[in-house]
Amino acid sequence: MTSYLITGCSRGLGLSMVETLASMPKSEVGTIFATSRSESAALKDLASKHNDRVVTVLLDVLSLDSINAAVTTVEGKLNGKGLDVLINNAGIMGTAPGGAPAMKDLESHFEMNVLAPHRITVAFLPLLKAGNLKKIANITTTLGSITQVRKYTWGSSPAYKVTKAALNMLTAQYAIDLESEGFTVFCVSPGWLKTDLGGVEYADLSVEVGAKATLDKIIGATAKDNGGFLNILVKGWEKTDGPNQYDGLNPPW
Amino acid sequence: MTSYLITGCSRGLGLSMVETLASMPKSEVGTIFATSRSESAALKDLASKHNDRVVTVLLDVLSLDSINAAVTTVEGKLNGKGLDVLINNAGIMGTAPGGAPAMKDLESHFEMNVLAPHRITVAFLPLLKAGNLKKIANITTTLGSITQVRKYTWGSSPAYKVTKAALNMLTAQYAIDLESEGFTVFCVSPGWLKTDLGGVEYADLSVEVGAKATLDKIIGATAKDNGGFLNILVKGWEKTDGPNQYDGLNPPW
Repeated sequence: MTSYLITGCSRGLGLSMVETLASMPKSEVGTIFATSRSESAALKDLASKHNDRVVTVLLDVLSLDSINAAVTTVEGKLNGKGLDVLINNAGIMGTAPGGAPAMKDLESHFEMNVLAPHRITVAFLPLLKAGNLKKIANITTTLGSITQVRKYTWGSSPAYKVTKAALNMLTAQYAIDLESEGFTVFCVSPGWLKTDLGGVEYADLSVEVGAKATLDKIIGATAKDNGGFLNILVKGWEKTDGPNQYDGLNPPW
Repeated sequence: MTSYLITGCSRGLGLSMVETLASMPKSEVGTIFATSRSESAALKDLASKHNDRVVTVLLDVLSLDSINAAVTTVEGKLNGKGLDVLINNAGIMGTAPGGAPAMKDLESHFEMNVLAPHRITVAFLPLLKAGNLKKIANITTTLGSITQVRKYTWGSSPAYKVTKAALNMLTAQYAIDLESEGFTVFCVSPGWLKTDLGGVEYADLSVEVGAKATLDKIIGATAKDNGGFLNILVKGWEKTDGPNQYDGLNPPW
């Protein structure tokens, strides 16, 4: 019975990952700590439907006090056990229609997309070290691939791209530093999903398909994926001719 | 007569680049704006030796007010002309002996290595647009290559690596967004130099050799290098068997 903690669960990908995990056999998925800055009606609903294993926890990823309080809450609920899987999902994506020189949101993106995952990982590390799987998944994006910048020029979100590239390097550093303790640390690109962040109109995939494909990658990850940049696999989207492909392979950094 | 502005010139690579440029023919190098938070004795000396073209400018890269004041000063000195080359050189490298989980300096590295180059580039952009070369060089490091993290595990500077990867993506975004206006924006890895930042004892190259090789890359860069990750070329250091190679090629991101 694997335990999970996911940040940013009030909506979108986070909420859908909680729902997907909650629908899986209890032999596979134990307690799911669904954290969010404030509890949305949708998350409350989901938690009450699955109150045997979905535990909501208030966690403002930008506040160290809130992070530490969440650790104490989770530690209490785990009752001496460790935490198996941490999914750093909370993130933001703004746009700068004038491109990089017009970017005014670099700091806020850094705090949310890089500093917060770092602080959360540090704070939950003692519980993760006591866990069975020692898995840390950081939600990233293929738009964070510096090698592929020419492929994604249509979306003017420079702060998102810059901070996701930084998150990718952060992941690689953690992977190296925690490897000897049996950790598997990696990043996963969940695809372009019909969420508030991705935009409902043009995005490629429903949030349910993205959440399932992302969890497939996270659950399937083994030691060989430590330090990896994983892309989801979605049937019918393995094409290589369009800008987006969900081929289950590792994009270049 | 190309004009240059370099940040972080009180010592190390910045100071040495000013010295190297000041030793070049006046037909090639015009005014050199050597900026620093405070003027070191070495920079003052150098400027008085070359007071016909080295202009020192106080610029604290962490202060927007200071950046804007520097722009006004430089604009006045340029007397209606544009600025040709901007070199974002100021940067910091701390160490975290406990690795990424022990890292407490991620924010300060982000401010210095990513946010500051962004703000400085934005502030000097009008002058650069009026320049002849429209060249922006960001000083990065091969340690910022996510692809090569396994090659550089001996140096525990995770915040440096994370923020230089972010700077690399920032550079790539600027390159795309300014391309149509004739800009060449790229990053250069100056090598491991015997400076306060690099450490005098173990570093590979003298600061003079590194500064010369870095300027060779910057001066030689053409449109084809827009968005590029350039490594210096140093005779005798093209080897591929050690951790550090200065082969003049483009490292993977």
